[in-house]
Amino acid sequence: MVIEAQQSNAEANQQRHPAHAPDMPIVAVIGDGQLARMMQTAAIELGQSLRLLASSNDASAAQVCSDVLLGDYTNLEDVRRAAQGADAVTFDHEHVPNEHLDALIAQGVNVQPRPEALIYAQDKLEMRKKLQALGAPVPPFARIDSVEDALAFWDQVQGEVCLKARRGGYDGHGVWFPDTREALATQVGELLEAGTPLMAEEKVALRGELSAMVARTPSGATQAWPVVESVQRDGVCAEAVAPAPNLDVALRQQAEELSVALANGLGVTGVLAVELFVCQGKDGAVELSVNELAMRPHNTGHWTQDGCCTSQFEQHLRAVLDLPLGDTHTTANYTVMANVLGAAHDPAMPMNKRVLEVMRRYPKAKIHLYGKEHRPGRKIAHVNFCGEHLEATRNAAQAAAHFLVHATWPEQSSEQGE
Amino acid sequence: MVIEAQQSNAEANQQRHPAHAPDMPIVAVIGDGQLARMMQTAAIELGQSLRLLASSNDASAAQVCSDVLLGDYTNLEDVRRAAQGADAVTFDHEHVPNEHLDALIAQGVNVQPRPEALIYAQDKLEMRKKLQALGAPVPPFARIDSVEDALAFWDQVQGEVCLKARRGGYDGHGVWFPDTREALATQVGELLEAGTPLMAEEKVALRGELSAMVARTPSGATQAWPVVESVQRDGVCAEAVAPAPNLDVALRQQAEELSVALANGLGVTGVLAVELFVCQGKDGAVELSVNELAMRPHNTGHWTQDGCCTSQFEQHLRAVLDLPLGDTHTTANYTVMANVLGAAHDPAMPMNKRVLEVMRRYPKAKIHLYGKEHRPGRKIAHVNFCGEHLEATRNAAQAAAHFLVHATWPEQSSEQGE
Repeated sequence: MVIEAQQSNAEANQQRHPAHAPDMPIVAVIGDGQLARMMQTAAIELGQSLRLLASSNDASAAQVCSDVLLGDYTNLEDVRRAAQGADAVTFDHEHVPNEHLDALIAQGVNVQPRPEALIYAQDKLEMRKKLQALGAPVPPFARIDSVEDALAFWDQVQGEVCLKARRGGYDGHGVWFPDTREALATQVGELLEAGTPLMAEEKVALRGELSAMVARTPSGATQAWPVVESVQRDGVCAEAVAPAPNLDVALRQQAEELSVALANGLGVTGVLAVELFVCQGKDGAVELSVNELAMRPHNTGHWTQDGCCTSQFEQHLRAVLDLPLGDTHTTANYTVMANVLGAAHDPAMPMNKRVLEVMRRYPKAKIHLYGKEHRPGRKIAHVNFCGEHLEATRNAAQAAAHFLVHATWPEQSSEQGE
Repeated sequence: MVIEAQQSNAEANQQRHPAHAPDMPIVAVIGDGQLARMMQTAAIELGQSLRLLASSNDASAAQVCSDVLLGDYTNLEDVRRAAQGADAVTFDHEHVPNEHLDALIAQGVNVQPRPEALIYAQDKLEMRKKLQALGAPVPPFARIDSVEDALAFWDQVQGEVCLKARRGGYDGHGVWFPDTREALATQVGELLEAGTPLMAEEKVALRGELSAMVARTPSGATQAWPVVESVQRDGVCAEAVAPAPNLDVALRQQAEELSVALANGLGVTGVLAVELFVCQGKDGAVELSVNELAMRPHNTGHWTQDGCCTSQFEQHLRAVLDLPLGDTHTTANYTVMANVLGAAHDPAMPMNKRVLEVMRRYPKAKIHLYGKEHRPGRKIAHVNFCGEHLEATRNAAQAAAHFLVHATWPEQSSEQGE
């Protein structure tokens, strides 16, 4: 009670930052990357402006917000300052310590999604256990606390082992495929010694990847997007195609229903991305298996900015504010998103010139740049194309992204686009 | 030469604001209203962030930008500060004194559109003269420097007089329809005495209004949008329907060609809106007549945010930066934009609650709020609906806008929407 009274006095005393129009909600976002940046464009049209907890004033999202607090999301006081007076607190990553979020909630702060749900996007072992309990399709898995655990699992799955760091992995980081018992033993020994909590699961016979996305409000309303095909290169999302082409109707329905069931079962609020493996089961049948979960806007949902009535960024804001969710029908036959990752060596042609060349060749290209400097492999932009025909749309997206990365056109690319 | 050297030193010395990512162009916008605000959402996705010259930190656009200079657009030094180091300077209104722009251009600043073009959006008499010289359809008009001029014009057009302030009029302000010779004489006498430069033109037999919009780059490339029908209430735009329904193909083509011809003929850069009257000519035939010009994003182009591949805000930025223009195909059969103007008495229900109710009833509503406080008649938001069928789309847009204004549903409105 004392704490609540202090909080409410502090709120009353805090002067409202001029970024926030009277009568409009304040959403505080912990994080300053491109997801927060693109939430800000959605916020602007909804009459809002985000408050950011950012690491620097020139971070991707901080460039485009005026209410920016500089601080560290691992520091409770910094997170508390960002939350003060906010109608909802949300995230552009999963790395805020949950004990900080518990502390905020104890003070009456409206944190969305809640740490009870977030844990399943933070800890892969907790996620696997919960998914199994909910009856969602997951491969055999085990907690790995010792080399012995690892070798026992190797034998259990006949050497088809995928080893994972329980926390902090993304874009292929924190995932290993040791190909002998000895390699597994060495790797597990080193990782445990370095203090990395581990789990292992059986490798699947991968035929493709899907992403099933849904938004859910604290009141329990859900709204799914069409399931998309996600194409990975070197463990990183390279492309998303909406809706997933050549997808069996039953699988599509299963994926969509699964995303809604998981959003409800895990108590997710905001956007949930369910990354799915399409794999060949033991009996030869094609089946789904959950790979990862993310509880925020997700790379495989960027297509919604240009190909859908309600973008994932707008929907995330609506969801965390417990507003009614928007319609998710597509506005084109196909929308293809292609990621722009920093090349090994940044071409001499400056990015603004590359953008000009892509605009010249493809008047339909929707280029989204994150305001980030080049770094090899870094996600610095994506490009969306909407079109009637899959192949032409996909070719155009790939060619445009290729040019933004390399400042050259791929050999096969068409001058025409869609 | 000396001036240029000073400018370039000043630029080199100026520290780049962290809002602006390395290698990305800086567009400075003079003005802080909703047009600048919506340019910022387009700028963000293009990897940019605007620099604003704003009157206050809580102005509509200033809420959502971080590089904000407070100042007065009638003060040359303030405009000069905003222009410093910018790749282009543009506007969200027409009220910057042209002598200031000439001074900037003399210093080497890239002002778009140029004052030589802007004058035709600022001074209605200059506009009429130039349009006539270009062969564009305009009603008979006259410069009015005296009561005698006015009475002579009254006789010339048999009393069908529309009297206009040459500068500063908008949304029905600065336009009068005196219905007797005496009323005309009195009004003209008073206005001239108050120092208001005047012109008069013949009233047209109005059957409807269209808006033909186009963007043009400094290199001379043009790209038009589909012509829209614009519905006015009390002299203010209430609705825009894209594309204009039931429009004769020849008239549509004429309107579009006219917008392109005027953009070229006037040397416009950025977005040009040509407001057109559809009128009954002397011979009974339906014909077009130019009403007004605006050289910036325009209220009748707001539909492009949700119903078109390239929005007018993105296109304006591309145009003033001399980038290739984007595709302007529509993404739905019909898009209807309805304006939200402050009611005479603001309803007790707060705006955020009204937004929630509209979202609940219409999941397809695209609400765009400007972060402005209520004032009777003030433009505070608009709502876009895309749909297959005109009537349902239009009903939904009207009902949503009505609720945002009055916090009540119009009697006829459907629960279903499109």
